[in-house]
Amino acid sequence: MKFELQHTDSSSQARTGLITTDHGQIETPVFMPVGTVGSVKAVQVTELKDDIKAQIILGNTYHLYLRPGLDIMQLAGGLHKFNSWERPILTDSGGFQVFSLAENRKLTEEGAEFRSHIDGSKHFFSPEKVVDIQRIIGADIMMAFDECTPGDADYDYAKKSLELTERWLKRCMNRFNETECPYGYRQTLFPIVQGCVYPDLRRRAAENVASFEADGNAIGGLAVGEPTEKMYEMVELVNEILPKDKPRYLMGVGTPANLLEGIERGVDMFDCIMPTRNGRNGQIFTKNGILNMRNERWKKDFSPIEEAGASYVDTLYSKAYLRHLINTNEILGLQIASVHNLAFYTWLMQEARKHIIEGDFPSWKRTMVERTMQRL
Amino acid sequence: MKFELQHTDSSSQARTGLITTDHGQIETPVFMPVGTVGSVKAVQVTELKDDIKAQIILGNTYHLYLRPGLDIMQLAGGLHKFNSWERPILTDSGGFQVFSLAENRKLTEEGAEFRSHIDGSKHFFSPEKVVDIQRIIGADIMMAFDECTPGDADYDYAKKSLELTERWLKRCMNRFNETECPYGYRQTLFPIVQGCVYPDLRRRAAENVASFEADGNAIGGLAVGEPTEKMYEMVELVNEILPKDKPRYLMGVGTPANLLEGIERGVDMFDCIMPTRNGRNGQIFTKNGILNMRNERWKKDFSPIEEAGASYVDTLYSKAYLRHLINTNEILGLQIASVHNLAFYTWLMQEARKHIIEGDFPSWKRTMVERTMQRL
Ligand SMILES: [Zn+2]
Ligand SMILES: [Zn+2]
Repeated sequence: MKFELQHTDSSSQARTGLITTDHGQIETPVFMPVGTVGSVKAVQVTELKDDIKAQIILGNTYHLYLRPGLDIMQLAGGLHKFNSWERPILTDSGGFQVFSLAENRKLTEEGAEFRSHIDGSKHFFSPEKVVDIQRIIGADIMMAFDECTPGDADYDYAKKSLELTERWLKRCMNRFNETECPYGYRQTLFPIVQGCVYPDLRRRAAENVASFEADGNAIGGLAVGEPTEKMYEMVELVNEILPKDKPRYLMGVGTPANLLEGIERGVDMFDCIMPTRNGRNGQIFTKNGILNMRNERWKKDFSPIEEAGASYVDTLYSKAYLRHLINTNEILGLQIASVHNLAFYTWLMQEARKHIIEGDFPSWKRTMVERTMQRL
Repeated sequence: MKFELQHTDSSSQARTGLITTDHGQIETPVFMPVGTVGSVKAVQVTELKDDIKAQIILGNTYHLYLRPGLDIMQLAGGLHKFNSWERPILTDSGGFQVFSLAENRKLTEEGAEFRSHIDGSKHFFSPEKVVDIQRIIGADIMMAFDECTPGDADYDYAKKSLELTERWLKRCMNRFNETECPYGYRQTLFPIVQGCVYPDLRRRAAENVASFEADGNAIGGLAVGEPTEKMYEMVELVNEILPKDKPRYLMGVGTPANLLEGIERGVDMFDCIMPTRNGRNGQIFTKNGILNMRNERWKKDFSPIEEAGASYVDTLYSKAYLRHLINTNEILGLQIASVHNLAFYTWLMQEARKHIIEGDFPSWKRTMVERTMQRL
């Protein structure tokens, strides 16, 4: 993987860049739709490519490991072949799901034992195993195995947790360097900065992560319950330390405003289930604010979902129709909301990119943070 | 509405034709995807048009009357405007749903009282009301209100039921003739032949229906539990009486084989929830037989869903991937199965048309009935 830093905003940390992988290039800042079990929920691959214009999607190691399982993944020739997504793929390490979804988990120095949330079967993830699994999934960008510390963890817990994450990172990197992509293309591994909301832990974590000189670096353990201002503070502090010439990925974030604030603080990559999950619940993000499609207000509003919206669904269907579909639990409602929200998120990243290049990012950002977050 | 009978098979009753409505033309034989609540489940309108190549879809009066309701339908300017489907629409009369879905129904000479299956609210459908509702929905082809007799009804019940249906038909026709389309285009009304599995009742019903000289005629009350051979026998007998120069619509039928047998007996139009509902359960219809995607057999089969299939999903995705999606209840699995099955059904109708024109329909049909119904 290669990263070319293209343009840096003169009055903020915002930047544009170009990531090159063996499955194609990615313009940053970029939003990565989440394809949990190997599919971005309610979205056809053709829509993902041509309408949403996603440049890279995310797969969840925990989910894919359980279903379809590694034997199928290997026989398929990796996730790209399996789900027909030929552009880049990033996989998380599965750590977050083990700690939030799996049952009976036991954490040891060696790794994490857990039971599947599906059938109760027993499994064990170690840093080495998680690298091996991501090799088999065939992600272009793999993530290190870490303990995702809760947002309200006390200092002692956070410190111990970070120390474990750092020992695991070393083991991940070693395994990564000893192994190869089973399918012949290049894969890379991003380390993750943890440290909860404690500045000295975050600083130490960022320095340790930077020392590996990886192709890119991630910031994890944020947007997990801490105040938003704390999140921004941690991002700022970490990005002062992380190398400028490598992409920075803020994991699991967030709202349109969160993304814009992240960009201003030097973040290049984002992922979040919000556009798809909230979309399925009837929440529509637009450049003029947030629409709750369950609201009576849209019942007789036959205007397009979004005028001059980012995808074909915006003008093909009306607000009243989408409201009706969401209201009657029609699958098409989930499809339309998901395509719309994802297209809006990728559009927003391309707009940010444009404004960074044009030099008016900070003022554009201020307007958009306000506009996109108002409730219509 | 206009019907042009184009070609009749020399050795069977199979025929091709062209229906002209104010929303466009329909080549027959035709299969009409069911869009119950105003959306064909799990299918985008663009896919319906460009990939499935549906020429006409069906809407359910009962469902649309309850949700979104007639006020919304009227404000939208009818269903075409509401759901963005600009091609022809046919609506059923709601009778079938009142008798199968609604609660506390009471049947009188005047009509049917029932409670909504959604919120228990009380409603009343009469032949006149059902015509008025379909006027407001704006269907190109509306259906008469009838009692759908159960497949195992005894002769006396079936006879009484038919007599009621015939009185209701007269009232429907009167109301239709007294009213106009609220949106300025032409609408038409098809009467329905009932009579259960009793030849003399079916004959009498067909004669009565034919006497109205409607733009098209429907055969109802079949595929409701009676033996398949009885269904074919009734279709044959009814089609001997129904005018040849008007389209014949066999309601709620059926499997690929049922459609082909219907065509051979002179049927022009079909609708059924089977391709979508069974698709969502993992049943895939192909020209070589039926695949149950829940079967272990497809787990490691990375070949296309259907080689040379009728739509883009067939070669974009593999059997193993579709199996995985169905197995993990991913929405994309429902989408792929629905697009595939509907595209197969419309393809099958176009193939039948081609073979009727080419003159080898009966032998082609024999092969296809056998091939499409085998379990793979
Ligand atoms: Zn998130
Ligand atoms: Zn049916």
